Amino acid sequence: MEAVIEKECSALGGLFQTVIGDMKSSYPIWEDFITKAGKLQSQLRATVVAAAAFLDAFQKVADLATNSRGGTRDIGSALTRMCMRHRGIETKLKQFSMTFLDCLINPLQEQMEEWKRGVATLDKDHAKEYKRARQEIKKKSSDTLKLQKKAKKGRSDFQPQLDSAMQDVNDKYILLEETEKQALRKALIEERQRFCCFVAMLRPVVDEEISMLGEVTHLQTISDDLKALTSDPHKLPPASEQVIMDLKGSDY
Amino acid sequence: MEAVIEKECSALGGLFQTVIGDMKSSYPIWEDFITKAGKLQSQLRATVVAAAAFLDAFQKVADLATNSRGGTRDIGSALTRMCMRHRGIETKLKQFSMTFLDCLINPLQEQMEEWKRGVATLDKDHAKEYKRARQEIKKKSSDTLKLQKKAKKGRSDFQPQLDSAMQDVNDKYILLEETEKQALRKALIEERQRFCCFVAMLRPVVDEEISMLGEVTHLQTISDDLKALTSDPHKLPPASEQVIMDLKGSDY
Repeated sequence: MEAVIEKECSALGGLFQTVIGDMKSSYPIWEDFITKAGKLQSQLRATVVAAAAFLDAFQKVADLATNSRGGTRDIGSALTRMCMRHRGIETKLKQFSMTFLDCLINPLQEQMEEWKRGVATLDKDHAKEYKRARQEIKKKSSDTLKLQKKAKKGRSDFQPQLDSAMQDVNDKYILLEETEKQALRKALIEERQRFCCFVAMLRPVVDEEISMLGEVTHLQTISDDLKALTSDPHKLPPASEQVIMDLKGSDY
Repeated sequence: MEAVIEKECSALGGLFQTVIGDMKSSYPIWEDFITKAGKLQSQLRATVVAAAAFLDAFQKVADLATNSRGGTRDIGSALTRMCMRHRGIETKLKQFSMTFLDCLINPLQEQMEEWKRGVATLDKDHAKEYKRARQEIKKKSSDTLKLQKKAKKGRSDFQPQLDSAMQDVNDKYILLEETEKQALRKALIEERQRFCCFVAMLRPVVDEEISMLGEVTHLQTISDDLKALTSDPHKLPPASEQVIMDLKGSDY
């Protein structure tokens, strides 16, 4: 009985140590994630700036088409809509990059310190409880041994005391096993909470990303409009022919 | 009659000059567009590189969750799917940035030279034809004047010649007007073709951008999965409890 429990406790303790060890050795991976995320975030921020300047230039091209003497006003208007939609995407990209920093990168960096403290506490508490439980078992076992020696010498009046002491040792083992189970459960929950916490930080970023890509839907319509408007580049549209006609008798 | 046609020709010629002038003065706007597009494209390229490095780091975090002792395997698998979808987006972003350069920025740069040559030719041809037509009108007009003087002196035998000469002047004016109309039409078409050409270069870029949209739906599903999987971070999932149970009697 004791041998079986001893084996189980050892397995639980071993897994506890593995989980704690896994968590402790994972920091370089999390730190690398934070570093790479930070670099991507700076790139995104720089991209937002470049996109804003690009869209200013794009709008000027659209204005060229809009303000021309004839024939490209519709194209100019569609290009302006295209530009405005992209300003919407630019705004979403900016929000996405801010959320990336504010909801994931910075909080995760702070969280790391808490994780380190949490695991150290788990490890220390476990060691303390394990040591105490082991000492109690040792003491009870040595009590039992003494009583067994006395019982062997034929002193049968020690038998009830011996039975009780053996039961004590057994109880302590069951207690140790429960302690080990609880410690393991806590370690597994701690490990799991890390990923739950990570996912909770990640989701608003993905939400921003989804809403940014959602802006792209509107682009299709404008792209189709532009295709139709420019389908015959070698022919003047009626509006332009009208401009030529209107010059007759005008005071241009 | 001549006065009216003269006015119309002048209006047509004036608009022609305005359109040519607009096209000539638009180069700084196109050049600015190309510059800003180039800067945005470099940023996008750098973002693709940063995104690739970030996704490598992200995958390592996903692997942490997948390879943990219990309870986070499902989260790890969802994070891996999230990472793979983002690799898809990264690929699309790379294609988008290449299309931006290959289909818009570089061809537009080359096109600009052609535009400059085209407008110069239009302007030169128009000036030549206008000059010739004007000279012919001048010559015919002076013939008419001479005949008119002779006719005034009572030489009625010159009347048919005078009528024919006046008709000639009139015809030349109509020809000039037609020449001016054609030149204006050519200039308007040239201007319009620029924007048609621009739109033709822009559309594949927008298409690539839209194709990034295809990845959105998948992100939403994975984000929802992650939410469900991490909804109760303080409780171990059955799989982890099983891990603890399985230790009983194992040889861990």
